[in-house]
Amino acid sequence: MDATLKILDASKANLEYHDIELGEQVYLSGNSSGIGPNAWDVINECKTILKAPITTPQGKGYKSLNVTLRKSLGLFSNVRPVTSLHPYVETKFPNMDVVIVRENEEDLYAGIEHQQTQDVVQCLKLITRPGCEKIVRYAFEYANSFGRKKVTCMVKDNIMKLTDGLFHKVFDEISAEYPNIISNTEIIDIGTAKLAAHPENYDVIVTSNLYGDIISDVAAEIAGSVGLAGSANIGRNIAMFEAIHGSAPDIAGKKIANPSGLLNGAIMMLTHVGEIETADKIKNAWLTTIEQGYHTADIYQEGISKAKVSTSEFADKVISNLGQKPQSFKQSELSKGKGVINIPIYVRKNQEQVLVGADVFINWKGSDPEEIGKALTSLNDPKMMLKMITNRGVKVFPGGISETYCTDHWRCRFIASDAKIIDGKPTYSPIEYSSIIGLLSNLNNQGMEVIKTENLYEFDGKRGFSLGQGE
Amino acid sequence: MDATLKILDASKANLEYHDIELGEQVYLSGNSSGIGPNAWDVINECKTILKAPITTPQGKGYKSLNVTLRKSLGLFSNVRPVTSLHPYVETKFPNMDVVIVRENEEDLYAGIEHQQTQDVVQCLKLITRPGCEKIVRYAFEYANSFGRKKVTCMVKDNIMKLTDGLFHKVFDEISAEYPNIISNTEIIDIGTAKLAAHPENYDVIVTSNLYGDIISDVAAEIAGSVGLAGSANIGRNIAMFEAIHGSAPDIAGKKIANPSGLLNGAIMMLTHVGEIETADKIKNAWLTTIEQGYHTADIYQEGISKAKVSTSEFADKVISNLGQKPQSFKQSELSKGKGVINIPIYVRKNQEQVLVGADVFINWKGSDPEEIGKALTSLNDPKMMLKMITNRGVKVFPGGISETYCTDHWRCRFIASDAKIIDGKPTYSPIEYSSIIGLLSNLNNQGMEVIKTENLYEFDGKRGFSLGQGE
Repeated sequence: MDATLKILDASKANLEYHDIELGEQVYLSGNSSGIGPNAWDVINECKTILKAPITTPQGKGYKSLNVTLRKSLGLFSNVRPVTSLHPYVETKFPNMDVVIVRENEEDLYAGIEHQQTQDVVQCLKLITRPGCEKIVRYAFEYANSFGRKKVTCMVKDNIMKLTDGLFHKVFDEISAEYPNIISNTEIIDIGTAKLAAHPENYDVIVTSNLYGDIISDVAAEIAGSVGLAGSANIGRNIAMFEAIHGSAPDIAGKKIANPSGLLNGAIMMLTHVGEIETADKIKNAWLTTIEQGYHTADIYQEGISKAKVSTSEFADKVISNLGQKPQSFKQSELSKGKGVINIPIYVRKNQEQVLVGADVFINWKGSDPEEIGKALTSLNDPKMMLKMITNRGVKVFPGGISETYCTDHWRCRFIASDAKIIDGKPTYSPIEYSSIIGLLSNLNNQGMEVIKTENLYEFDGKRGFSLGQGE
Repeated sequence: MDATLKILDASKANLEYHDIELGEQVYLSGNSSGIGPNAWDVINECKTILKAPITTPQGKGYKSLNVTLRKSLGLFSNVRPVTSLHPYVETKFPNMDVVIVRENEEDLYAGIEHQQTQDVVQCLKLITRPGCEKIVRYAFEYANSFGRKKVTCMVKDNIMKLTDGLFHKVFDEISAEYPNIISNTEIIDIGTAKLAAHPENYDVIVTSNLYGDIISDVAAEIAGSVGLAGSANIGRNIAMFEAIHGSAPDIAGKKIANPSGLLNGAIMMLTHVGEIETADKIKNAWLTTIEQGYHTADIYQEGISKAKVSTSEFADKVISNLGQKPQSFKQSELSKGKGVINIPIYVRKNQEQVLVGADVFINWKGSDPEEIGKALTSLNDPKMMLKMITNRGVKVFPGGISETYCTDHWRCRFIASDAKIIDGKPTYSPIEYSSIIGLLSNLNNQGMEVIKTENLYEFDGKRGFSLGQGE
């Protein structure tokens, strides 16, 4: 952090600093979220955060502070430009110049998890229309503002037709408003593979939180720039800038760390607060320093580098290069861009939402789907009837096959007892929520252990839930 | 398929064939699952499937047939060996030789999705202990059987502490039983990045379904072998073998397709049914053919290839090479392996499961968390009290901050009204499920629109649910 602040000061950036502390120390002092209440006041006053790397413990302890900050502050967009610095930074991909725009607030990273039975643990993947609209529009606005030609969407909607399907649908809607920008959609598995093999074919990529986490690391790693790249976390009122790399306890205090990651985060911060010419000045000085061969140990290469420098020596070189332009790298020309990106406030369109049933999940230790299927069929509930049972999404009743492996977690789909099922295809009938409560009472009285429920809705007459595998 | 069958026949493999039809044709003829009932009978009789590529439509129509087959048949393990064929197949990674063992039945691919409000769509990620145990043990047994030295686990348990945490925990338990095999765990984002940049550092990788989908495509793509690799889907009784590539409608019927993907699937099939020497014979003939430079159009390279051949010419070359051994590639020595892999039947350990509360999700169109928070606090439910509210996982009541963006999807955590909360940390009290039913009635009577519920349990006295972000 010191090296970056020193460069910012030397550049005469018009900034005022207020310090806050986050992380393990705060956690150990008794605040389970790892962030103290006074920190929120400072953030709300300043609106802009330059954050040093902090560590998230694996599998225990407090929740990811990075995630808490991003989500509490509504930082919906994580932006990571990744550019090769060939030949000064080793890479197999000298021509890559890709920007990953990652949704930052939702998806599996909502972190809503429940162990429901002895066998089964669940995490909720939440995808929202406002979340999709904001991130997709941000990606196109970003492309417009920084002269980018193409936006690629990555989803897995051949499997997740509703959640990833929503992301894809919103992408199609919004891309139509930007006819001057090329747009396309790829399936995340193949897309990640193609990005890894041919990153030079990508320009801007927009995707949801988990996928974005993976592909932004892939991009940085194959560019050789994990230690050098910065990232922006943009919200409506507050924004946070950081290095993409995590903390490195093994080299802490050794004065050999490469400050480029945080510096590149700071450069993005300067463009965000309107100090765009200063941003260009620092970026060009940094590119010049890399070109001149003054390299910290992490990127030092015999025969290519000129000198191995410490953190502060590197910072001093950047400072002495303020005002210089790089010779072989492309110059930074952020100040030629269109400036600040504005995202319209989400307006909820009201759809007609009709309750037509419920998936009731039951903890049952038996193994024969026919047994639980018959018990539930003969419930004689006045309002609801069993349509099917799945186990891990696969239909096992009626008409399952014996090879399907069954856990103790049975999803039992109930619909109105006056719904019509013809050839397995129902015409759903509306129900009242009180019918579901009645069904739950009935199941409870029969000794069935209900562990969770999911209502089934139609939205504007369209089914708002997936079918069972094999339904 | 014809080319592969021709080679199998020429190799004198001891096989008997029964044909079944799957996919779009079956779907269009009125079977919504895309697989007819007689197909299941044939599969149950034969136990072994060699499957040609089929297409899954994106975002509509029938569910992925590949997923239906894998899950209905309990094919828990997807195995994909990826080996470079440098210099005959172009790759930046000449030394990669990695096997990806992907969990094949659960995770987000259970495909359980619900639109719950105007704004929010949800997909369930289900991770099970039997699923984790089977796949992790398979990976170590595979390593043992085929002389592999190291197994790497990839998870995201710094975020998903319960689901991915379970996978990691089971990996740690089972790896301890294989002290002769090196084991380690990586976070999926960094792991995927490192695999993409340095695949030669990996041996066997075991991971859950979605991650495995992504990394197996990354591995195949950077090896240049997407069109050449086969894959096995292994269940307790039934197994299915295929090419890793999908269908290619653009070259269908042109007789230029590379049959290597399905052929490599067939070679894995032969080892599985005990025809291991025949498997070696075909594999060595295939490697020899690649070395000799007889290449189909997809891998043909001027200056490296000797001749561009059609599908059937390639098959004939492989047949004429039966009995040959490759000169520069490593010979196939499957018949020196330890043979068939057996996975013990899962035994459920019974934990004490105590109900201590419920997350009740409410569809509410307001925007101020204080408003819904106060309404729910003043419910005066006799058995349950509100502990907190989150929106997309972030705590917004009590004590939220104004910057948090709120959708119409409010997760309201209720616990026993006699639970003790000291400094925000509760000592949970057991409740009866009837208390949750009472709460739902109470909420319904107050005009609150409940959309879903998740019970909160302790297992053997340990909390079986995540805290809210910032809780």
